[in-house]
Amino acid sequence: MRLISKEHKIFGIIRVMDTKILKLEHFLTEFYESAEFPKGLAEPAKYSLMAGGKRIRPLLFLNLLEAFDLEVTTAHYQVAAALEMIHTGSLIHDDLPAMDNDDYRRGKLTNHKKFDEATAILAGDTLFFDPFYVLSSSDLSAQTIVSLTRELAYASGSYGMVAGQILDMAGEGKDLTLTQIEQIHRLKTGRLLTFPFVAAGIVAQKTNQEIEKLRVVGQILGLAFQIRDDILDVTATFAELGKTPGKDVLEEKSTYVAHLGLEGAKISLTDKLSEVKKLLTELNVTDSSEIFKIIEQLEVE
Amino acid sequence: MRLISKEHKIFGIIRVMDTKILKLEHFLTEFYESAEFPKGLAEPAKYSLMAGGKRIRPLLFLNLLEAFDLEVTTAHYQVAAALEMIHTGSLIHDDLPAMDNDDYRRGKLTNHKKFDEATAILAGDTLFFDPFYVLSSSDLSAQTIVSLTRELAYASGSYGMVAGQILDMAGEGKDLTLTQIEQIHRLKTGRLLTFPFVAAGIVAQKTNQEIEKLRVVGQILGLAFQIRDDILDVTATFAELGKTPGKDVLEEKSTYVAHLGLEGAKISLTDKLSEVKKLLTELNVTDSSEIFKIIEQLEVE
Repeated sequence: MRLISKEHKIFGIIRVMDTKILKLEHFLTEFYESAEFPKGLAEPAKYSLMAGGKRIRPLLFLNLLEAFDLEVTTAHYQVAAALEMIHTGSLIHDDLPAMDNDDYRRGKLTNHKKFDEATAILAGDTLFFDPFYVLSSSDLSAQTIVSLTRELAYASGSYGMVAGQILDMAGEGKDLTLTQIEQIHRLKTGRLLTFPFVAAGIVAQKTNQEIEKLRVVGQILGLAFQIRDDILDVTATFAELGKTPGKDVLEEKSTYVAHLGLEGAKISLTDKLSEVKKLLTELNVTDSSEIFKIIEQLEVE
Repeated sequence: MRLISKEHKIFGIIRVMDTKILKLEHFLTEFYESAEFPKGLAEPAKYSLMAGGKRIRPLLFLNLLEAFDLEVTTAHYQVAAALEMIHTGSLIHDDLPAMDNDDYRRGKLTNHKKFDEATAILAGDTLFFDPFYVLSSSDLSAQTIVSLTRELAYASGSYGMVAGQILDMAGEGKDLTLTQIEQIHRLKTGRLLTFPFVAAGIVAQKTNQEIEKLRVVGQILGLAFQIRDDILDVTATFAELGKTPGKDVLEEKSTYVAHLGLEGAKISLTDKLSEVKKLLTELNVTDSSEIFKIIEQLEVE
C-alpha cells in the first residue's frame, strides 16, 4: 500500500494538474462503463487503463494540436484515447508470464496477477480492437480517419510495436550492436511515440513534408525515451519506477547503458532531447508551449 | 503425418476448386513475405494463416458481392484478408495454454506448440493490428473504409468476439440457459460471421434497411455455425475435425447438444439454415449462387 501511494506522489504531479488527462481518463472510463460490455472484460481493461499511466502519448498529441493553434475537440480525445488503449494493451501483454513475467507495473499488480492470465490476454486483445472502433466513430472527416487508422495500425503491428517486441525477445542474452538496439527500439517504443506527432500533423492538415518532419521528431523522441528507460533501470528504485528495477541486467538485455556507460547514455539522451526541441522550433512550435514542458520532463539528473 | 494428409483430403475439396481461396491465400502470403517484417513474427503469422482454414468468412463476403452483381477487385480481397487475419489471430489466442490449451488445430500443431507461447501471443496480436492497415490501404472510398473499420472493430472487440470469449470462459462448468448460450455465441462466433454480410452490404451500397437485414442473416448463420460445431464435437473424429473432439464435455461446456439433445440440435441447425436461405432470397440472392452452396456445406447428415 505504501508503495502505491508513494508512486502516486511522484507521478501524480503532472496527473492532477492537467485537465487534458482528466478529460482523457473520463472518456476511457466512460467507454468501458458501457452497459453492453461484460464486466469480466471491461473491469480488467479499465484496471490497466487507470493504473496511473503518465499519458505521455496522448499529451504529446493534444498539446501538439494546441501548438498548431487548433481547438481540442471530443474527436481529438477519441484519437488520444485510441492511442492510450493500444499502449495499455501492449503493456498487459508484455507483462504476461510467457513474456516479461512482471508482477508489478506502475506500483500496482500487473493485469494477470490482479485477474488471471486468460483475462489479461483478452483484456489486451480488446484494447487492440476497441481503439479502431473509437477512431472510426469520431466526427473527423472520413479521409482523416482513414489516414489515422493506417498510421495507428502501422505503428502497432508488423510494421511497428509487435515487430519490435519480437526482435527484442530474440535479442535477449545476445550481444547486440548499437544499430541493432536502435532498430528494436525504433519499432518497439518508437513507432507508437511517433504516432502522436504524425497524427497531429494529419489532423492539423500540415503538408506531407511537415508531416514527415514530425515523424522524424517522433522517432528521435522514441529513442530518447528508451535511453531514459535504460538509465532509470539502473538508477531508480522500485518506488520511483513503479516496477522492479535492474531487470535489464537480470535478463541480459543489451541496453544503451551497457553500450555507452551511464554517463554516455545521459549525454546521448540530452543530445536527442535538444535535437527534438530544435526540430520542433523549426516547425513553429514555441518553447513556451506545453510540448516543451513534457519533453523537459524526460530529462534525467 | 497421416492425420494431416487425411485432414487435407476432407477440407481440400472446397479449397482446391476455388480460385477465390487461392487469390486470398496469395494475398495473405505475399503480405507476410514483406522484407520489412521480422521473420520471427511473419513466419508464425503465416503458419497459422496457411494452416488449412476453410476461409468461410472471406468466401461469404466475396460471393455475396458477386450475388450483388459486383465485380470482385483487389480491394475486396483486402477486406476479405483483413477478416481472415482477425479470425486466425483469435484462434491462436484461443489455443493458448491459459485459454483452451489445445495442441492441435486443423490437424496441425497449434501456434504455441509449433513456436512458443510468447511468439503465439505476438503473432495473434499482429494479426489483430495488420488488418486495419490492410483495410485502410485499400482503394475503396474513405467513407466505405471508415464504415468497414468500424464494423470490423465492433465485431472483434468489447462489442463482439473478445466479449463472447470472456463470457464463454466465465460460463465453463456452469449450467447455462439456452438464452445465455445464445448470447455467448452471438458475440463469440456470431459477430465475426455477421461481418461478411454487413460488409458486403456496405461495399455494394445497399440501403440501411437492407444492411440491417443482412446483419440478421449473419446473426442466424452465426448461431447455426455454433450448433454445427457442438454437433461435430460429439459426432466427428479427430481426423474429420482436425482437432481433439469431445472437448466440450471434458470442459463441462454448456452446448446446444447438451440442451437439445443430438437430434434436437440437428433440427435446430436445419431450421436456422432454412431461415438464412429464405432471408437471402428476399434480398434477391438466388439459390443458384455460390453463397447457397457454402451454406449447404454447413448441413450435417
